[in-house]
Amino acid sequence: MRASLKGVILGIVLAAIGGVALANFSKSEDAIEYRQSVMTVIGHHFGSLAAVVKEQTPYDRKAVEHDAMVIKTMAELPWDAMMFPGSAKGHTTIKASALKEKDKFMGVARELESATQKLEETAANGDLNTVKAQFSVVAGVCKACHSTFRKR
Amino acid sequence: MRASLKGVILGIVLAAIGGVALANFSKSEDAIEYRQSVMTVIGHHFGSLAAVVKEQTPYDRKAVEHDAMVIKTMAELPWDAMMFPGSAKGHTTIKASALKEKDKFMGVARELESATQKLEETAANGDLNTVKAQFSVVAGVCKACHSTFRKR
Repeated sequence: MRASLKGVILGIVLAAIGGVALANFSKSEDAIEYRQSVMTVIGHHFGSLAAVVKEQTPYDRKAVEHDAMVIKTMAELPWDAMMFPGSAKGHTTIKASALKEKDKFMGVARELESATQKLEETAANGDLNTVKAQFSVVAGVCKACHSTFRKR
Repeated sequence: MRASLKGVILGIVLAAIGGVALANFSKSEDAIEYRQSVMTVIGHHFGSLAAVVKEQTPYDRKAVEHDAMVIKTMAELPWDAMMFPGSAKGHTTIKASALKEKDKFMGVARELESATQKLEETAANGDLNTVKAQFSVVAGVCKACHSTFRKR
């Protein structure tokens, strides 16, 4: 009895220390904050690429490779958080339909993963014209998803 | 005259379309939002690792490798944003001393990059005990920097 009580207390203490130490999200707000953070990072690096594509900043192969790598890595991250039950409420711009039409939403998510992987490969080839073309493909996937599943 | 006016207008339009399309940060708020987003993503994946280290969640080699990869990738990103001039003011917990003592701050930043790279390598080796040891090293670097350069 005493030993099992100790066990319970230890469990509570570990959970308290853990905080964010759960493999996934313990509450909707955490899932929303995480996915918004991922999108902010993607947005910044996509913006850097956009400046190169528009020839506002000079083409630097290493910088483009780096931006593409970050975008590709981040594009794999936010989907569990997007699909967190009940997370279409609160401080978020996701539409409830995204969670209701999970297969459709996740289909577009997989498209983004695929398009950004190709962007990374394209960037590694070092030809600005093919980077520009693949950038447009990725931008199209972003836009299509936002039009369908993001609140205005 | 007409041609140069066109040029000016084109420039304004491109800048407007660009939005975040500047290679770096156009204002302090953007730098703060970006670096906080990076830290949120690091925090989440570090939390996942912490749960494994504390044996709250079972050791899954692929999951640990993935968390370590994300942490290592993210640990290289926030430093320009941290050092953005004037960005110790506003909605941020960074101390002004971080920007004043740039060399000291960036020394710790490089330590984090190095420690997280080793974490990624350790995770790839698939031995939980060495992962635990390197996790502690990384946690120590986090803590030391937060104690020195983050507001309570």
